[in-house]
Amino acid sequence: MVRIGLIGCGYWGPNLVRNLTELDEADLAVVADLDPSKTRKLARRYPTIRGTESADEILNDSKIEAVVIVTPAETHFDLARRALEAGKHVLVEKPLTLDPDESRRLAELADRTGLTLMVGHTFEFNPAVRRLKALASEEAFGKVRYVYSTRVNLGIFRPGINAMWNLAPHDLSILFYLLDEEPASVIALGKAFLKPGVEDVVFLFLEFESGVIAHVNVSWLDPSKVRRTTVVGEKRMAVYDDLDSEQKLKLYDRGFESTLFEEGGMRDYQVRLRAGDILAPKIETTEPLRLECAHFLECIQGKKRPLTDAWNGHRVVAALAAAGESLRSGGKKVAVARGPRPAPQGSS
Amino acid sequence: MVRIGLIGCGYWGPNLVRNLTELDEADLAVVADLDPSKTRKLARRYPTIRGTESADEILNDSKIEAVVIVTPAETHFDLARRALEAGKHVLVEKPLTLDPDESRRLAELADRTGLTLMVGHTFEFNPAVRRLKALASEEAFGKVRYVYSTRVNLGIFRPGINAMWNLAPHDLSILFYLLDEEPASVIALGKAFLKPGVEDVVFLFLEFESGVIAHVNVSWLDPSKVRRTTVVGEKRMAVYDDLDSEQKLKLYDRGFESTLFEEGGMRDYQVRLRAGDILAPKIETTEPLRLECAHFLECIQGKKRPLTDAWNGHRVVAALAAAGESLRSGGKKVAVARGPRPAPQGSS
Amino acid sequence: MVRIGLIGCGYWGPNLVRNLTELDEADLAVVADLDPSKTRKLARRYPTIRGTESADEILNDSKIEAVVIVTPAETHFDLARRALEAGKHVLVEKPLTLDPDESRRLAELADRTGLTLMVGHTFEFNPAVRRLKALASEEAFGKVRYVYSTRVNLGIFRPGINAMWNLAPHDLSILFYLLDEEPASVIALGKAFLKPGVEDVVFLFLEFESGVIAHVNVSWLDPSKVRRTTVVGEKRMAVYDDLDSEQKLKLYDRGFESTLFEEGGMRDYQVRLRAGDILAPKIETTEPLRLECAHFLECIQGKKRPLTDAWNGHRVVAALAAAGESLRSGGKKVAVARGPRPAPQGSS
Amino acid sequence: MVRIGLIGCGYWGPNLVRNLTELDEADLAVVADLDPSKTRKLARRYPTIRGTESADEILNDSKIEAVVIVTPAETHFDLARRALEAGKHVLVEKPLTLDPDESRRLAELADRTGLTLMVGHTFEFNPAVRRLKALASEEAFGKVRYVYSTRVNLGIFRPGINAMWNLAPHDLSILFYLLDEEPASVIALGKAFLKPGVEDVVFLFLEFESGVIAHVNVSWLDPSKVRRTTVVGEKRMAVYDDLDSEQKLKLYDRGFESTLFEEGGMRDYQVRLRAGDILAPKIETTEPLRLECAHFLECIQGKKRPLTDAWNGHRVVAALAAAGESLRSGGKKVAVARGPRPAPQGSS
Repeated sequence: MVRIGLIGCGYWGPNLVRNLTELDEADLAVVADLDPSKTRKLARRYPTIRGTESADEILNDSKIEAVVIVTPAETHFDLARRALEAGKHVLVEKPLTLDPDESRRLAELADRTGLTLMVGHTFEFNPAVRRLKALASEEAFGKVRYVYSTRVNLGIFRPGINAMWNLAPHDLSILFYLLDEEPASVIALGKAFLKPGVEDVVFLFLEFESGVIAHVNVSWLDPSKVRRTTVVGEKRMAVYDDLDSEQKLKLYDRGFESTLFEEGGMRDYQVRLRAGDILAPKIETTEPLRLECAHFLECIQGKKRPLTDAWNGHRVVAALAAAGESLRSGGKKVAVARGPRPAPQGSS
Repeated sequence: MVRIGLIGCGYWGPNLVRNLTELDEADLAVVADLDPSKTRKLARRYPTIRGTESADEILNDSKIEAVVIVTPAETHFDLARRALEAGKHVLVEKPLTLDPDESRRLAELADRTGLTLMVGHTFEFNPAVRRLKALASEEAFGKVRYVYSTRVNLGIFRPGINAMWNLAPHDLSILFYLLDEEPASVIALGKAFLKPGVEDVVFLFLEFESGVIAHVNVSWLDPSKVRRTTVVGEKRMAVYDDLDSEQKLKLYDRGFESTLFEEGGMRDYQVRLRAGDILAPKIETTEPLRLECAHFLECIQGKKRPLTDAWNGHRVVAALAAAGESLRSGGKKVAVARGPRPAPQGSS
Repeated sequence: MVRIGLIGCGYWGPNLVRNLTELDEADLAVVADLDPSKTRKLARRYPTIRGTESADEILNDSKIEAVVIVTPAETHFDLARRALEAGKHVLVEKPLTLDPDESRRLAELADRTGLTLMVGHTFEFNPAVRRLKALASEEAFGKVRYVYSTRVNLGIFRPGINAMWNLAPHDLSILFYLLDEEPASVIALGKAFLKPGVEDVVFLFLEFESGVIAHVNVSWLDPSKVRRTTVVGEKRMAVYDDLDSEQKLKLYDRGFESTLFEEGGMRDYQVRLRAGDILAPKIETTEPLRLECAHFLECIQGKKRPLTDAWNGHRVVAALAAAGESLRSGGKKVAVARGPRPAPQGSS
Repeated sequence: MVRIGLIGCGYWGPNLVRNLTELDEADLAVVADLDPSKTRKLARRYPTIRGTESADEILNDSKIEAVVIVTPAETHFDLARRALEAGKHVLVEKPLTLDPDESRRLAELADRTGLTLMVGHTFEFNPAVRRLKALASEEAFGKVRYVYSTRVNLGIFRPGINAMWNLAPHDLSILFYLLDEEPASVIALGKAFLKPGVEDVVFLFLEFESGVIAHVNVSWLDPSKVRRTTVVGEKRMAVYDDLDSEQKLKLYDRGFESTLFEEGGMRDYQVRLRAGDILAPKIETTEPLRLECAHFLECIQGKKRPLTDAWNGHRVVAALAAAGESLRSGGKKVAVARGPRPAPQGSS
């Protein structure tokens, strides 16, 4: 059993509390929040959990082996660093940090200390996303050509972070996981309608060295909730719609076939449409956050590198930082800094 | 009654033939197509229509008062110019031309000759689009903030024109009609997967002087057919989904309200969510193409300037030409040339 | 080529005209309708078709080989009988008649004369229904357990016939085609809201000797249009939704497995849920009415018995007549008269 | 604060536990379940709740003021009776009992003792159902003509109770609440496919003295989950789809208008279609079960008669008992026994 302290009990924290309390290997002992009404409310439902207003109480508690950080993104770096320096394993919500230098430093610190530093990129634990990756990796799917993703709704406006930093980490984490590749460049365009300087609508465009292109549309200011990713391969196509309860994932056996032919000295491309069946594979219904929490515990106990380790979190931060620069420049193409990283990236 | 010749009987031509034959004021006398099997097939169904392989036969026929041009876009300029010079009224399919100099010259020629030159931007005759414009123009909707539009499917691959020139004229014509404004600049990104040089997937991003932004996603290489435009206003939002037979148009009485407040010397924005009813107004079901054809005849007979006159067609061509330049440059922002135009743009 | 006369040019007639004119083997020479404005309108579009107000002109024309009857149901018997007696092949719209004695007499007359008498049960030519039958007949589907079908909308109110006789022929024709079985009994319940004596809403319940049960819900007084049939088999299930353009047919690899077990002298059923993939097979998009018309011509020319011959039409009339009796009695179970019929029912 | 004991912690019990623990006025002290693993699991999450295997422990505990019964339906009568006799208020899950004599006796016992006896007909607390009733009661809606309801899925097979007793209480409770009327007669048809004697598919047909008719379709053996009720009024129509997250309730301003006219001594009905807008009103998102629990507490504390009091529960049991008789008889129409009941039925 792993003794855990959790910092931050706002919107998302209670979901982590709920999942951790249901896992046999987790012993969630303390929850910290600056707002005592939050922990008091929690205590009513989970009387065994101690509440505190002080994150330090958790960081300084030698009996706490692991810290779960669910605070605003701007505090992630500092809290995660201090937790690692205190010898604790860390699960930190996405985005890992708001700055790629800081995410790199955290990743290096985790590597150096041998502690588990995992980022809460929940979608990489989502059974539908897992299945999507498996299908898109099959020979029959062909090479991925392009991906586009929409994550919009009339959402929770967060004054401190724009819609891109709030929503796009999900899309980018899914995208990089699917492609096993990081983008070469990014263009970002958007606008702040509600509060100057805080973009509520952002369109991202990413290019990869392999030739794949991707588009991401995020917004807090949309009439309907959409959570959908389309993956177009050379031979098949897939749509992952997280809000479709019956067919979360659809695999389309359709596409164009393009053949170069020569006739009478002339060369041209013949393009033929192929339209086949649609398959909606059965998707396991386990809650992704539960799988994520269980994975965190397994990595700690089995000394395994997490699927969404700090380098995984770093690549998302690096892409978003470049996108932020493009956004501020009004849409210039910005190269995504990648630089050196340790060779073996995951073992799970 | 207006005596009409139609040139081009490929994919879209037969729809114009069908609508014209059903209108009392139209007398569709001749149809020209280079492929005699096309006109032969037509003659079977409409024995009163004469078929010919020669467009000249129509252009030179002094009894023909109006010419409908449904040929590939690269031939529009030449055919429309010759028809106008022969003193005939012209309805030409979208895009008006592939070059803004040519579309401008056609517009000027039409103005000079006083002949009707109308562009087949069918969506501006679509009752759902008309209603959308009416709703978005109401005080209660607030100023439009942004618009995004998706027009994708596993479509008809056209070797001679990319997906942007093929599909985006619809979205841009809807957009400019809604906003009564032309874009200041455009960024276009895309990729040619099936045939080098012919982009099958394009993402457009447009900025307007008024502050509105717009995004358009077109593709021939998509698993599902989507025809959807979302309009986000300051107070309300609307979705126009052309494939939703029950609710083509939805008006959402929801949004955020942002108020600047000062307290103790601090100024901040308070953002409050407002979620209200959804209204799907009843939409008249008349076929838009029929309304378009009837409008063409009315303009000829009443000497009225068409809603989708050549200047209307020109603004779409100008935006697409700028987008094409951005596409070729890999996504640079390109200003949309607008220049002088005659003051009164429409009278219908 | 078969020389054809068509009687009745109201709501559905023009669809038959359109399809017949497009088939090489059909020569639609005359169309009769009591309302001369109907045939005049038609002549405008199809100048080669002669219009007449007199059905007799068709029935007495010795050059007409086949008659297509698209008149109100109460006239079917008389017109079809006279056409057969005049030595003509007949395609008659559904329902074949409003009385099972009459439908039987027509079937017998067709058998005796050797002429083709086919009923316009279009759905049996619908590629999705064909595929549904093929799938439901596979070993992997298991025996069909029950079927239910909904055909409702805010429809065309027809004063002379109730919603059951107007809409349910489609559902029953699909049902009997799928099951290769006729019902043993039927219960019908409904109500006339708009005009006394003309039920606008009817619920049917059918029982089959094989143990299958079926339910049909038809209405002219429903807010939404629904055209959906669900087929539940022992091992798989299927849904045919005629209005779903992307997934007209869905095959669900799911069900319960029930096993009888004995333990300690106790016997019980263990029921285990099995939930698997959903498959939406690609469905050919040819218009069913065109396939129906082509089949009619093939049967005439090849002297084949039609898939939807008069006995096929009779079984629908027999079931509806029993249902009508149940409806009038307020929901009593009524046996469906079947009686003798010639052994070989179909050869197509 | 009301001190509460809850009996039965299977599938639904934990939802009641969760809601009760979150209400300030509830003090859930004890939970009983025959299976100690259930209460042990619960205790992990709610350490303040005492677990027991004995319902008697709750019934005999004089400090317990109210008992919540979430056990299989066959035990409801006995447990509720004993709780009332012990002077405790009771919230019992639906159906109140499996026998209308028993439900009547409970209702009378509650009236006699003055204790609160409430039935868990959650849907009557559902904000969408509340709004539906409000809309359907408006003058503009016209008199309700008919209602039909579908509640199917590939569900949890329950060996001891058929799909009708399991699912239809929801539909009937919604129906009687909407209409403020009980049915005069019922016809039920169904079949037991998985286990002899336990119908998994049932179709109900109800007639009301006011002329309203209703149809209910329930099944455990269906490929898709459907939870939908359609209400057709004289002037408007409504659809309540519990699974539609954006438009749970849709109000259709459409219908037929039927006018009787006389002309030249002839009388006939002229029927005219009216198709107008669709309105999806915003629905409050509070969990219905929470509203139900709060209502129970309010009724106890304010000595009010619950909306879903025992007479409300009784009318559902009476209709289901008649339906069961019809089902066993193979579909005979069975009158629903109503008999005397105390005049004032609700005060909330």
